[in-house]
Amino acid sequence: MKTLTNYTFEELEIGSSATFERTLEERDLVLFAAVSGDVNPLHLDPEFASTTQFGERIAHGAWSGSLISAALANVMPGPGTVYLGQNLKFQRPVKLGDRLTVQLEVKEKKERRHQVTFITQVVNQDGKTVVSGEAQVMAPTEKMTLEAPVLPAISIG
Amino acid sequence: MKTLTNYTFEELEIGSSATFERTLEERDLVLFAAVSGDVNPLHLDPEFASTTQFGERIAHGAWSGSLISAALANVMPGPGTVYLGQNLKFQRPVKLGDRLTVQLEVKEKKERRHQVTFITQVVNQDGKTVVSGEAQVMAPTEKMTLEAPVLPAISIG
Repeated sequence: MKTLTNYTFEELEIGSSATFERTLEERDLVLFAAVSGDVNPLHLDPEFASTTQFGERIAHGAWSGSLISAALANVMPGPGTVYLGQNLKFQRPVKLGDRLTVQLEVKEKKERRHQVTFITQVVNQDGKTVVSGEAQVMAPTEKMTLEAPVLPAISIG
Repeated sequence: MKTLTNYTFEELEIGSSATFERTLEERDLVLFAAVSGDVNPLHLDPEFASTTQFGERIAHGAWSGSLISAALANVMPGPGTVYLGQNLKFQRPVKLGDRLTVQLEVKEKKERRHQVTFITQVVNQDGKTVVSGEAQVMAPTEKMTLEAPVLPAISIG
């Protein structure tokens, strides 16, 4: 059983950092298209994608962004976090098999609303930044450890 | 066959606007958790969610954000758009059955890189803003109409 343990507002310090990893698989392209409604063939149709400047299918930019949200909600601060805002700058395309690492670092803490600003960066397996930006969250005040829900099996096609 | 027709940089004017609608279904909670890796029980476990300030399961904030990306990529400017950046401010929770409308409006155009800034807002069925922000895109210069890919069936559980 996987568990999720949070960092409280008190525990977070300027410079506290955490990471979260994920590799882009073909199923992510289909699932993200289905769940967002973004059926741009750039993400789904290898033949169409080969005619574009990218030369092959790439991830939805918002998918790479969603990994930041996962890192904040599951790792740091973790359970009890309320997501207030996010800036995203999409810097490089993400291709099938790319291994992305979300890097979080606490930049600022404000007592009001227990607000914490994180520098949020997503880098690929070559150490190149694919998404940069900052997030604002309301950090939890109570320490907790939760069992991570087990997702049902998802089958495609 | 559904088609996607774009608006070119030339065609877009300050004030040009478009909308994109989507209703939050239970499957979206599971699919978004699977595709992003965000398995926070707030989005998945009704019992846990009932103990939080929200009282019930809510959508991942990044899911509401992903609808903006879908609106930009599929509706305006549509195919050929390159997503450069997005600011998101999460203002209200989104609950099962909520019907969201993404509202896009051109705020600024720059000849350099054919860059267009959109005011991006997501409102619920009561007209309340759930996400606000702005997007920067590189708009397409060639007019095109594409067939929207048909997604394979996805089954859960």
